[in-house]
Amino acid sequence: MTHRIERLCVIGLGLIGSSVARAVKARLPDVIVIGHDASEAVRGEARALGFCDDIADSADAAVTDADLVILAVPVGRMADAARAMAPGLRADAIISDVGSSKAGVAAALRAALPDHAIIPAHPVAGTENSGPAAGFATLFDGRWCILTPASDAAPDAVAALTTFWKALGARVEAMDAAHHDLVLAVTSHLPHLIAYTIVGTASELEEVTESEVIKYSAGGFRDFTRIAASDPVMWRDVFLANKDAVLATLQRFNEDLTVLQQAIRRGDGEKLEQWFTRTRTIRRSIIAEGQDDPAPDFGRKH
Amino acid sequence: MTHRIERLCVIGLGLIGSSVARAVKARLPDVIVIGHDASEAVRGEARALGFCDDIADSADAAVTDADLVILAVPVGRMADAARAMAPGLRADAIISDVGSSKAGVAAALRAALPDHAIIPAHPVAGTENSGPAAGFATLFDGRWCILTPASDAAPDAVAALTTFWKALGARVEAMDAAHHDLVLAVTSHLPHLIAYTIVGTASELEEVTESEVIKYSAGGFRDFTRIAASDPVMWRDVFLANKDAVLATLQRFNEDLTVLQQAIRRGDGEKLEQWFTRTRTIRRSIIAEGQDDPAPDFGRKH
Repeated sequence: MTHRIERLCVIGLGLIGSSVARAVKARLPDVIVIGHDASEAVRGEARALGFCDDIADSADAAVTDADLVILAVPVGRMADAARAMAPGLRADAIISDVGSSKAGVAAALRAALPDHAIIPAHPVAGTENSGPAAGFATLFDGRWCILTPASDAAPDAVAALTTFWKALGARVEAMDAAHHDLVLAVTSHLPHLIAYTIVGTASELEEVTESEVIKYSAGGFRDFTRIAASDPVMWRDVFLANKDAVLATLQRFNEDLTVLQQAIRRGDGEKLEQWFTRTRTIRRSIIAEGQDDPAPDFGRKH
Repeated sequence: MTHRIERLCVIGLGLIGSSVARAVKARLPDVIVIGHDASEAVRGEARALGFCDDIADSADAAVTDADLVILAVPVGRMADAARAMAPGLRADAIISDVGSSKAGVAAALRAALPDHAIIPAHPVAGTENSGPAAGFATLFDGRWCILTPASDAAPDAVAALTTFWKALGARVEAMDAAHHDLVLAVTSHLPHLIAYTIVGTASELEEVTESEVIKYSAGGFRDFTRIAASDPVMWRDVFLANKDAVLATLQRFNEDLTVLQQAIRRGDGEKLEQWFTRTRTIRRSIIAEGQDDPAPDFGRKH
């Protein structure tokens, strides 16, 4: 069986959901895109922005006749969203998502929709902004989308979803859900946790005013504030869903931080310089791989 | 006495020193700029780039007749640089620097040059790149330059340096050196330490390959790699020079991280969401204060 995606439903119309809809309209103009969001206010905003062909007021109406349904809601809401749309689903519809943790989401979707083809996915892309107005069609250009199909997933459904994400500009890789959760704990979840922590720490010190923190943030602090401005509910759910991998990675970070702390306390300049020289090379690799802007300072205007 | 800056000497021609020279030529074209760097290779590069009126081969020749000398070398090298130029200094020359820690540098400069007017300074600006080719004339536009004059500093020298930095586009504030070191421990040194740590942690994990870290870095990790690509020697010296404030601030960070770690382990979503909501607002303040790009994702190209 070959899946042709002619009608797409996006459930959840925030930054990622609305970017998927916009990218489809830009790259696959023949695909009909139906959107739904549990929030009436978001549905109204999405209607006004016009990035979907239609916005449905209920999840089960939204998914009617869809070949592919993409759930773009916080990972803690995936099960509810799946149950809400279940009555309207076509039997052969492919169900996917964009959640930042995968093992828990896959289990929740399987439990809610035991008879459907579920191919979990995670486009590793985003900005610090939230909501339907924050999305844009080129968000996935050159970024990786990770699929975590179960071992018994239908190959043609995996192929259809791969083709779909490539059409939106993404590069696609498949891996085991548990490995995804470990990799993303390192490249995304721990960085967010650290950024949230340090921004909180800096704004609560008695000896340094918040005004000083803001004025002198160009010394490095401001780099952390971007991801610490990400959606609080989305990130709350990620940490709860990927608890074990996050805590394991955090332990490794804490060990390394203790080593550097000790080097500072002991005045061990050689250890510090050695460490700082090693970390310099990894940015060059990220730029060479096309995953960051080569311009100094992320390309900020000066 | 009024100081007129007609001849400037910049010692150390890396990112910051060469940006000072370029900014002076762009904004104060009548000022003669003489440069020097302890490295012959850097002197050659600076000559080829042509951002100084002249490059001197020795520090004492470089400072001859200068009204203002700015030391732009790693903070661990300030004392040596001051001693090297001492024989050539005019008695009424103002001595300043651009170091990222101030109490230790001030003491080192006072010891090396007991008879000169020393007004330590720190322009809070930079990029992750190093060397004379990395500098640019607009680096200090809208950024803050902090002066930490001693309580007995000559007001006219402070005024002259204030006027100088404002002419380069900076905003100027004066504070006590010890307070500077605490503020910058929060807004610059701790962020660099954390970024260096996490980039090291991520590249050393056995379970996740470096290739995976690089490919999926757009999930947040890449934001940390920018400041972890900063000059290793400069940063080694900063941590050694500002040890006490860095360790004190790090302790606060560790406390907060432990609190969030516990919230994750216990599944306390309310605490996480509350924390993440609070940190969101500080970025808006930084953008409102003109200290970061308002464009999503730091203005990276998409």
